[in-house]
Amino acid sequence: MISWKNLDALKGFEKLCALGRVDLPRAMAGAAGAARVAKYSVPMAAGLTYNYAAKAVDDDILAALAELAGEAQLAEKYEALLGGEIINTGEKRRVLHQLTRGQQAGAVTVDGVDKRAFYAEQQRKAAEFARKVHAGEITNAAGERFTTVVQIGIGGSDLGPRAMYLALEQWARQNGAFKMEARFISNVDPDDAASVLKSIDVSRSLFVLVSKSGTTLETLTNEAFVKDALKAAGLDASRHMVAVTSETSPLAKSSDYLAAFFMDDFIGGRYSSTSCVGGAVLSLAFGPEVFQRFLDGAAQADALAKNTDPLKNPAMLDALIGVYERNVLGFPATAVLPYSQALSRFPAHLQQLDMESNGKSVNRFGEPVGYPTGPVIFGEPGTNGQHSFYQLLHQGTDIVPLQFVGFRRNQAGMDVDIQGSTSQQKLCANVAAQIMAFACGKDDANPNKAFAGGRPSSIIIGDRLTPESLGALLSHFENKVMFQGFCWNVNSFDQEGVQLGKVLAKRVLAHDTDGALKAYSDLLDI
Amino acid sequence: MISWKNLDALKGFEKLCALGRVDLPRAMAGAAGAARVAKYSVPMAAGLTYNYAAKAVDDDILAALAELAGEAQLAEKYEALLGGEIINTGEKRRVLHQLTRGQQAGAVTVDGVDKRAFYAEQQRKAAEFARKVHAGEITNAAGERFTTVVQIGIGGSDLGPRAMYLALEQWARQNGAFKMEARFISNVDPDDAASVLKSIDVSRSLFVLVSKSGTTLETLTNEAFVKDALKAAGLDASRHMVAVTSETSPLAKSSDYLAAFFMDDFIGGRYSSTSCVGGAVLSLAFGPEVFQRFLDGAAQADALAKNTDPLKNPAMLDALIGVYERNVLGFPATAVLPYSQALSRFPAHLQQLDMESNGKSVNRFGEPVGYPTGPVIFGEPGTNGQHSFYQLLHQGTDIVPLQFVGFRRNQAGMDVDIQGSTSQQKLCANVAAQIMAFACGKDDANPNKAFAGGRPSSIIIGDRLTPESLGALLSHFENKVMFQGFCWNVNSFDQEGVQLGKVLAKRVLAHDTDGALKAYSDLLDI
Repeated sequence: MISWKNLDALKGFEKLCALGRVDLPRAMAGAAGAARVAKYSVPMAAGLTYNYAAKAVDDDILAALAELAGEAQLAEKYEALLGGEIINTGEKRRVLHQLTRGQQAGAVTVDGVDKRAFYAEQQRKAAEFARKVHAGEITNAAGERFTTVVQIGIGGSDLGPRAMYLALEQWARQNGAFKMEARFISNVDPDDAASVLKSIDVSRSLFVLVSKSGTTLETLTNEAFVKDALKAAGLDASRHMVAVTSETSPLAKSSDYLAAFFMDDFIGGRYSSTSCVGGAVLSLAFGPEVFQRFLDGAAQADALAKNTDPLKNPAMLDALIGVYERNVLGFPATAVLPYSQALSRFPAHLQQLDMESNGKSVNRFGEPVGYPTGPVIFGEPGTNGQHSFYQLLHQGTDIVPLQFVGFRRNQAGMDVDIQGSTSQQKLCANVAAQIMAFACGKDDANPNKAFAGGRPSSIIIGDRLTPESLGALLSHFENKVMFQGFCWNVNSFDQEGVQLGKVLAKRVLAHDTDGALKAYSDLLDI
Repeated sequence: MISWKNLDALKGFEKLCALGRVDLPRAMAGAAGAARVAKYSVPMAAGLTYNYAAKAVDDDILAALAELAGEAQLAEKYEALLGGEIINTGEKRRVLHQLTRGQQAGAVTVDGVDKRAFYAEQQRKAAEFARKVHAGEITNAAGERFTTVVQIGIGGSDLGPRAMYLALEQWARQNGAFKMEARFISNVDPDDAASVLKSIDVSRSLFVLVSKSGTTLETLTNEAFVKDALKAAGLDASRHMVAVTSETSPLAKSSDYLAAFFMDDFIGGRYSSTSCVGGAVLSLAFGPEVFQRFLDGAAQADALAKNTDPLKNPAMLDALIGVYERNVLGFPATAVLPYSQALSRFPAHLQQLDMESNGKSVNRFGEPVGYPTGPVIFGEPGTNGQHSFYQLLHQGTDIVPLQFVGFRRNQAGMDVDIQGSTSQQKLCANVAAQIMAFACGKDDANPNKAFAGGRPSSIIIGDRLTPESLGALLSHFENKVMFQGFCWNVNSFDQEGVQLGKVLAKRVLAHDTDGALKAYSDLLDI
């Protein structure tokens, strides 16, 4: 029987707070440090490893976290979610995005529909469509092949798919899987669409319009913008557009689209990269086989997240350590630092995933929680960040926990040997060096050159960023965020905080304002 | 006589802490709110306006901040900096980046060299070079014109110039000023250079190598990567490369470059966008006249920052309010939210500028400070962020102060009218709505749909993002960051926090490691 309790109502939390803190510079020094690196490591899916040696934990804290996990019923709640229970209690919805990539529990049937079969069928349709486009069976009116796919969507319909596209673009080029270039239009700022349209041949472009409700203002506005451009080029827009939406949306049955692929209310935008929201554009860009490999990696990670022992469940462990850092150590932000240029927009995806899921102040019952929930998430790829904001991370007055990601090999297969090492070796050397610099610091007679250390990090290590490891990486963080939501007893699946702005923006556009809102509207000449 | 004092040693700070807090939801409601929007507004350079009505300040707090500014000698310290005093005390250097765009104080002569004349001469050389490239007087060996410029640099040699390029690309295309496409290579990850090289015609590309010292490992590695590619294409690399460096660097006199443009130790990387670091690539991309207009906007903002009255000095006022939020209200992060797709990478530039300048724990004398200094800075363009991390900003447990930027008109001149309003109007309506939603919140019987409000923001409003307004925007934040550094009594111009990682990375590459560092190196297969 599942019981939803606040974090501070758990005995395990009280116990955790009472435990002594880890002296990280000392723990990571010498042979003991090397032993920690070997010991505090857990296999992830698809050949990845989660290493948490440089986190401020020890066996006592880990045992307390495991106790907390049991008391908070993390594994049971995850199983309930997989089994189709109404875990999105605020909106009274199931949470089924994991069915898009595999079946981790028994069949989930809603209104007589087997949802796993439904999502698989949508992906089969998208795959078939992509194959026809690649084979030249679906072309523009002049019979020419499409060369570019443009996703029109915002938020979860943009950040995840865009990050995944960038993550696999070089891999696909290197491995003969690159089919079509993808571009993305998201912002209602008309300069966004204008910029993309100027850089492509619209006559050879397919547009994927993504809006679950079919009513997202930005997306519909950008659709109209694109249709104007197609019309101006003498083209029939309906031969250039497909829709990804829900079956009940106004877009679903429209003849304005070459095809429509469906998702539903049980897949939140920020969890939708493995649904047709990512599936259509990624199958078009890299072929359905690559997308399937991405799904397989995610499914493996989902299976791993069922383990009841956090020491064997990297997503749960990552979540628990994050809760410890947020609620016991009191750190308000977390940086995501992939040492991989291909993951340049992965932090932006995680920023949405994490902050939109757990940036909440009330629990599942609508009661204010008395502890901090989701932290601020930010990040840029390394080594770039080293020459930017790392100064504050090393020597600033606040401690920011760090999540590194690194791969032994690069994607493009091109490299150069300078001063006795390749670029890839330099990249890896830097991430290893940073972990130790943050953990142990350095004494110096000049206080300006001294480093206090004690700045915790973990690293996810892989051999190479592939479709499978990317899927595993994505799922790891989705599951981590959900586990943290369970710990904090918040609903990680709604986003009521975005509503008020929408309502007020409509009032501005209707000139139905007064007071300061009217004053700002006047200043902005609306 | 300038006196460097810690923030908490100032009487004004004590007074500020003792003042009552502003009830922002109440202050911004009704006619009083409209009056605040009119009153709490100050002109910036180049037609911009800084509006701080939605900040949690009132006349008493503003008066105390002005007193604090006087006691901290902000204006005197700024004048001293402009006059060429050794303000970078840690490295015993002057801080002269503002001379690249104008002369705000008397002549600054170093070792007999008039530095304003020196920087102007470097820009004149870069401008002449760009004109010759545009005129087809400098071409590749086959006599073909260059069509692409690729900047190779990292940190300050990358983030600022890249953000400025993206900011003006559409404007330039719309206004007949677009000369050459620019691309950027920064990361030591070989996939970064590989990706850029695959997307361009190297035979028609000019590469701008930017490294002040001429020894930046990432940049030299990427130079070698590019030279390999040029050689593989049968090209003479020295006909394709220019250097931006210091006169004493190994690159300065090399025959490997078509030309060399100089900066020096008095221009920090993160403050170098208006030097040749930005000047070479931006003059090539948009023409020297556009770059000059950008400099003019920055110079206007520099002049405005000399005003001793914070209520007439937007950079100083912005800085003071930030200090109030950080040190009195206790907010650990700040979000930068430009409602302009052209400013998509401006937050990444500000992230470096701010966090690398003021992420320090010791004061100018090497003594630990007893208060928080620079906050975490992050951000993405609106409206994109609204569909992502704004959930946490609205309803999370921590308050994050916000810096909005908005323009009345877009750059590209293309727009579409949907549901009775243009995209640009929707964009502006959203930023106005967000300010009010954050400030005032909303009661609701369902606590999950309630917004506490009281989340402070300011907005910089302009007519259109042009070279002048971009220059003014850049300078505003540079000056803000310097004023905050003065308040916190830290040296905003060094970055000792990046050194330790470099040292350890070299040890890893030399296989001179033990303990945990060796263990991580082994895991990463170095």
